[in-house]
Amino acid sequence: MPSDPTARLARQVGFILEVDRLKEIFRQTLVTQSRRQENDAEHSWHLCLMVLVLAEHANAPDLDVLRVLKMLLIHDLVEIDAGDTFAYDETGRADQREREVRAAERLFGLLPADQGAEFRALWEEFEARATAEARFAAAMDRFHPMLLNCATEGAAWRKHGVTHDRVVARNRHIAEGAEAVWTYAAGMLREAVARGHLPA
Amino acid sequence: MPSDPTARLARQVGFILEVDRLKEIFRQTLVTQSRRQENDAEHSWHLCLMVLVLAEHANAPDLDVLRVLKMLLIHDLVEIDAGDTFAYDETGRADQREREVRAAERLFGLLPADQGAEFRALWEEFEARATAEARFAAAMDRFHPMLLNCATEGAAWRKHGVTHDRVVARNRHIAEGAEAVWTYAAGMLREAVARGHLPA
Repeated sequence: MPSDPTARLARQVGFILEVDRLKEIFRQTLVTQSRRQENDAEHSWHLCLMVLVLAEHANAPDLDVLRVLKMLLIHDLVEIDAGDTFAYDETGRADQREREVRAAERLFGLLPADQGAEFRALWEEFEARATAEARFAAAMDRFHPMLLNCATEGAAWRKHGVTHDRVVARNRHIAEGAEAVWTYAAGMLREAVARGHLPA
Repeated sequence: MPSDPTARLARQVGFILEVDRLKEIFRQTLVTQSRRQENDAEHSWHLCLMVLVLAEHANAPDLDVLRVLKMLLIHDLVEIDAGDTFAYDETGRADQREREVRAAERLFGLLPADQGAEFRALWEEFEARATAEARFAAAMDRFHPMLLNCATEGAAWRKHGVTHDRVVARNRHIAEGAEAVWTYAAGMLREAVARGHLPA
């Protein structure tokens, strides 16, 4: 900690206020009640709650749940500058990494240096999907929009003409974090096709 | 775990979908950008992120951060049924506990029994403010709307005619969880008065 704890706290508060912008970054997924688009802040909360409920289904027997939550609380912050890239937008995904790295540098740079470095490392860990915690976090991040899409008659899929095979290809890595959740999700997708909510 | 893991997972997913409703429970506080009312899901995410940033300022030297996050992720779920009670609404606060207990019974009752009991216990721990973790969680829950109010020219305070002495009386327990945060907050309130954003 630097010599002036008040200055440190003021800097931390500045970061907290800046990331309030996450509440205005809208996703393609709809919320189940009013059917408006979900924002990244709500999405992040819902993911973290899912972790508490579903952690027992993780492939890793000794999952560090706190680490998973830390990653998910910050995983979308880069979208404040880089915007949300729809999972099935191949053009947007081409320069996504570059845009998001710039955003990470600016945003985590608002924090005291030690904390900025910690947050940046958590974000990189999430992106790399090389640890059990990152794989489970990524599984939740992919399962969540599928679940909301199924609960809203496939609204986002149908709007963008996304087909069953693309949803499977993009999301099957859920199994790397939680086999049981992927088995459940695959069944949910078959049901969505049967109901006409997801083109075959 | 019960004998049928698929049935357990289906029940957990049912709970996750039900609590999507938290995204439609609106608070008096405004978000800083578009100045619309904040909802409980966004608020919960923002609180959890604040915990990651500010945990070092907790009075308790060995705070269990995971426990704090668990409490904050679920602390407002009861408002899905009971609605949001404005911090300065004395009438609404009279039967708040009764309404919220009924909500806790219904919502946590959607989960498998062992998990429902765990979540209920976390909610009661948060409400009772008797542990270091609950006191820090409560400190974040009180500091957050103050911060957003200060960043939106005191919109919610001015709308409801809330005065500086009432804000101090309602929020000074922040010091029980984090002295340094309360010192900072008290300064922020004095500044809000000086700027005419909070009636003296």
